[in-house]
Amino acid sequence: LPLTYIQYIDNCYGENFMPDEIYLGAVDIGGTKVTASISNRKGFLTRVYQKTRKEGKNTALPEQIIFLLENASNRAGLSLKDIYGLGISSCSPFSFRDNFCYLKSANICGGLAKERGLIPNDWTEIPIDRELKPYFPRLEIENDCISAAIAERQFGAGRGEDNMAYVTWSTGIGAGAFVNGRLLTGKNRNAVHIGHTFISFDEENSPLCGCGDYGHLEAFSAGPAIARDYGLIAADTAVDTKQVFEKYSQGDPGAIKVIERVAKIFAKGLANLTILLDIKVLILGGSIINDWEILEPLVKKEFFKCFPPLTEGVEFRLSGLSKYLGDMAGLCLIMPDEWISLWQKTKPWEKELETIVL
Amino acid sequence: LPLTYIQYIDNCYGENFMPDEIYLGAVDIGGTKVTASISNRKGFLTRVYQKTRKEGKNTALPEQIIFLLENASNRAGLSLKDIYGLGISSCSPFSFRDNFCYLKSANICGGLAKERGLIPNDWTEIPIDRELKPYFPRLEIENDCISAAIAERQFGAGRGEDNMAYVTWSTGIGAGAFVNGRLLTGKNRNAVHIGHTFISFDEENSPLCGCGDYGHLEAFSAGPAIARDYGLIAADTAVDTKQVFEKYSQGDPGAIKVIERVAKIFAKGLANLTILLDIKVLILGGSIINDWEILEPLVKKEFFKCFPPLTEGVEFRLSGLSKYLGDMAGLCLIMPDEWISLWQKTKPWEKELETIVL
Repeated sequence: LPLTYIQYIDNCYGENFMPDEIYLGAVDIGGTKVTASISNRKGFLTRVYQKTRKEGKNTALPEQIIFLLENASNRAGLSLKDIYGLGISSCSPFSFRDNFCYLKSANICGGLAKERGLIPNDWTEIPIDRELKPYFPRLEIENDCISAAIAERQFGAGRGEDNMAYVTWSTGIGAGAFVNGRLLTGKNRNAVHIGHTFISFDEENSPLCGCGDYGHLEAFSAGPAIARDYGLIAADTAVDTKQVFEKYSQGDPGAIKVIERVAKIFAKGLANLTILLDIKVLILGGSIINDWEILEPLVKKEFFKCFPPLTEGVEFRLSGLSKYLGDMAGLCLIMPDEWISLWQKTKPWEKELETIVL
Repeated sequence: LPLTYIQYIDNCYGENFMPDEIYLGAVDIGGTKVTASISNRKGFLTRVYQKTRKEGKNTALPEQIIFLLENASNRAGLSLKDIYGLGISSCSPFSFRDNFCYLKSANICGGLAKERGLIPNDWTEIPIDRELKPYFPRLEIENDCISAAIAERQFGAGRGEDNMAYVTWSTGIGAGAFVNGRLLTGKNRNAVHIGHTFISFDEENSPLCGCGDYGHLEAFSAGPAIARDYGLIAADTAVDTKQVFEKYSQGDPGAIKVIERVAKIFAKGLANLTILLDIKVLILGGSIINDWEILEPLVKKEFFKCFPPLTEGVEFRLSGLSKYLGDMAGLCLIMPDEWISLWQKTKPWEKELETIVL
């Protein structure tokens, strides 16, 4: 686990020093919004969010992060320089040069998107930590699913599990995993990018993925696919994903067909993940999981048919951190050991906190 | 690395003891044949093989292993009790109960095969190590691709690589991998079973896999698929896989179509592996790789089109241990440290050794 924040404090202040009060920032970067929160050892103090900035220079996003953290700090009666460490849980993929991390997400960088003109910039990458390092003694970044896997294992539904994956089923599909008790990050911290694996090699009959390729799990079974496929079947393109689930509950045959197909494909994607990593626990999160009551029997039925020697006995669990998962994901990257045991007992993520939209 | 053999010697004889001469056995269990070899620190002494026993009680295979090791020992002027340790590299999957390993391979256990009657037994599992433990002070088992990955990283094409996979492309397709310098084994030592991942969810248009499911990478692109698909196209079912490659070289349009399709599907399977594990080096082995000259441009062209942020810069290498890979795979599981550095220098796997068919 990359919990080197405590080592940082050790290095700066000596081994047995623990400041009376330290403040940590957590940022969750998504394709749609950026959330920033400030915590002390007792829990979250403030939390703000804003639409992800996609205009101007390619330093707009790190500047937005500073703006959000400054705003959140002020609301807590602090200033930016009171924040010792910052943990960032971010959409990805990443690329690394000269010890700096560059964000190359097609949802934010217009220069990478295949359908040009939808994103108002021509960025091919964002220098995500180079701009932020001067502000924070300690800075850690992981991709959102890898950091969510760390958070779920430390605080959520994955406590004590050595072979587990966190999978998000939302606008996109992604995962992070521990195998043999070790976090998988890979050469560029992009490991377990399940959404962009092929679940079909039949390009002609596959929908276009956001990344520009055909045949990916995400294009077939993430949230937007549900509304898209229902539109194709029902000639009613004005529905969103949530409505398709409502229509399913009302017995709409088109909605039943779409949901069953998407659940089956997603289950096969989960089977691929399980078969490759030989994991024991699958933890699910993301907006589509709000309709888990509908999806659970469909997904499980298909999943347990797949290669039984590797799927039998696998446990499905829902995220234990729910709507604070993104914040916990960033925060856990920099949390001192002392906080960890305290938070495991006090569970601050269960308390309600007002989120301010800026 | 599970190199606990040296710890065993330490435990038995004290920390600084190294016997003058120790002998180690290596066994490679495949669906078709079982190979056994005996080595001392200078290299391989003898090597024998036999068709895999599939008749009688489900202890027939461990009994065959004893028979082969006894025969190989005698040929080297030794007896079975001179063999300190045994490393087994085996087809899989495995299941574990009461600290014993049970082999549940559909190629050997007739009770697991979907097409009943082709395998002359009704076994559902083989107690692979329970029968062998009394004979060997030290016994280690891993699945063939996991142990091949260890061997390639220690002695072959993966030296010094922390993010690498070994992939076999043969009668079946399988893989073993290191991520962040750690071997992936998973909860039941079945990790990286890439052959049984879905490359298509379209069951109706997918060939039956040996495991009984539809849509698996192995059923679409392993060796038998090449001959099968050529038969479908050319109405000439009498060809074997090797002949399809010959026909490809002669410009046969049916062979070209089949090989191109199989190479494309296999490449997407390699992309899935790479995207999930964020690895840097892919090491290829197995009989299909004998025609790598034909396959290389086809596979690489398709592979590098897949999700560039994770595939760009990935290196393809061929197995560095070639026809001794199976023996080295078993042996490396139990090799003392002293041998490792010696073998890395002297490369005994490059010497020719007669293999006796029993």
